[in-house]
Amino acid sequence: MRLVSFLHNGKQRIGCPDGDQIIDLSIANPELPTDLLSLLEAGPEAMTQAKAAAADAGMDARVPSAEVTYLPLIGRAPKVICIGRNYAAHAKEGGVEPPSYPEIFYRGNTSLIGHNQPIIRPECSDKLDYEAELVAIVGKRARHVSRENGLDYVAGYSIFNDATLRDYQRKSSQWTIGKNFDDTGAFGPEFVSADELPAGADGLRIQSRLNGEIMQDANTSDFIFPIDDLIAKLSECMTLEPGDVIVTGTPAGVGYVRKPPVFMKEGDVCEVEIEGLGILSNPILNEVR
Amino acid sequence: MRLVSFLHNGKQRIGCPDGDQIIDLSIANPELPTDLLSLLEAGPEAMTQAKAAAADAGMDARVPSAEVTYLPLIGRAPKVICIGRNYAAHAKEGGVEPPSYPEIFYRGNTSLIGHNQPIIRPECSDKLDYEAELVAIVGKRARHVSRENGLDYVAGYSIFNDATLRDYQRKSSQWTIGKNFDDTGAFGPEFVSADELPAGADGLRIQSRLNGEIMQDANTSDFIFPIDDLIAKLSECMTLEPGDVIVTGTPAGVGYVRKPPVFMKEGDVCEVEIEGLGILSNPILNEVR
Repeated sequence: MRLVSFLHNGKQRIGCPDGDQIIDLSIANPELPTDLLSLLEAGPEAMTQAKAAAADAGMDARVPSAEVTYLPLIGRAPKVICIGRNYAAHAKEGGVEPPSYPEIFYRGNTSLIGHNQPIIRPECSDKLDYEAELVAIVGKRARHVSRENGLDYVAGYSIFNDATLRDYQRKSSQWTIGKNFDDTGAFGPEFVSADELPAGADGLRIQSRLNGEIMQDANTSDFIFPIDDLIAKLSECMTLEPGDVIVTGTPAGVGYVRKPPVFMKEGDVCEVEIEGLGILSNPILNEVR
Repeated sequence: MRLVSFLHNGKQRIGCPDGDQIIDLSIANPELPTDLLSLLEAGPEAMTQAKAAAADAGMDARVPSAEVTYLPLIGRAPKVICIGRNYAAHAKEGGVEPPSYPEIFYRGNTSLIGHNQPIIRPECSDKLDYEAELVAIVGKRARHVSRENGLDYVAGYSIFNDATLRDYQRKSSQWTIGKNFDDTGAFGPEFVSADELPAGADGLRIQSRLNGEIMQDANTSDFIFPIDDLIAKLSECMTLEPGDVIVTGTPAGVGYVRKPPVFMKEGDVCEVEIEGLGILSNPILNEVR
């Protein structure tokens, strides 16, 4: 099952991509929720109904992909939990040892944008960096889950560009502000249900490209803390809820450690590709006030 | 205007405290939203209607405070933005210089509880510490707001106990996990509208007491970054939305730096009092699995 979140004729929808079209689930079955968070909250039966509706949909339910505006896959996530330094080579390029416990920070929903929407370089900083990341999306409430059972709580996966203002990230000891500028967290385009991927989304090539040039090129098998371990560690502390988003960290190759440093600027296009998940593409624009 | 969020007969309500009673606004005016976030989102006119409804309420709208279960003042805040080291004496007791830019981290809503509800000491840690804090609640969308106009965006104030698992806070460089255990962020009891307090909630005595003993005793005039400055700095980076919660940092006197250290344990009661805002009281219980 693959789903996208989008605006069509000004209305929020979810749908199943099919070639250069999207099957609008609000037309295929008007009883279904029109946003992914509500669909996940409605439980696995609703997901099954969505799948059936897509399979039975007529031509009237199809809209051309070119006509829609992609939204962040989940726009009002209960929590957007981000992991730092989850690839050993990325920790090393930043001059630190691989962590023994995950580095965790949160993003707010005001920082999120969808596929094809511009990542905004703010007036106050020119240190805008890319970060290719795999996303795991929580499907049911989890508390005190063992690592062995961790993957039972993952509904599916997606792609994230955790674009970061490096100077704001380092203005204090806490990274949160540099990770929470408006229009910097690109999220999508597709939700891919866990059954369509290897267990734990393991062994997937992950790549970022800036204006077509490969900047990061790694594999999710290099995680220090794989998905099942993250679910176990997070759920030791907190309740994970349906629609919670876990952004799992970026591999080596970010811009600020390059010599000379590479930062994103107006006119650039940044793509993140993950094997089996697709391509998340975003142009960069300067802030207009 | 003072408001509390509570459950009565299993239903979520907001109301105006009046002595040992609460005027249930859902009875006083059934058209009004039944949670504070929705009331704030509905704008200043809705707040005026709430005030009028409370003034005109009959005896049938009153419920005894003793019969209600207090909820976190806002249970589904768009963002819960916490500030670290915002009192110079607290930075110093932690062995660091006062910051030149705010230390910022977020809490998720799963960490929040209401007045009188237990703060839970988890099985995995006995390093549960208290932190008395003033809360500022955003009343309208704010982006690129000057410090001069910052207070125009604050609807009101409240109290927070930012209870922290000190060992988890230090397991990595990022504090977020130690601040996000379930049932550790006590928030309430009362929303007090900004017009009832000095500008910026300046000059208010703030105190925490553990089993009646004064542990922290300071004044909001000691902020390194006062409320108007926080609004300006945050809104430089992100859009603040109605119902966003800004938890403004704790003064000196926390438990972990004491000799010997003081941590909260089952049977303790922790109170946070802020002049003009009331008392937030929470018992401590061990986690039961």
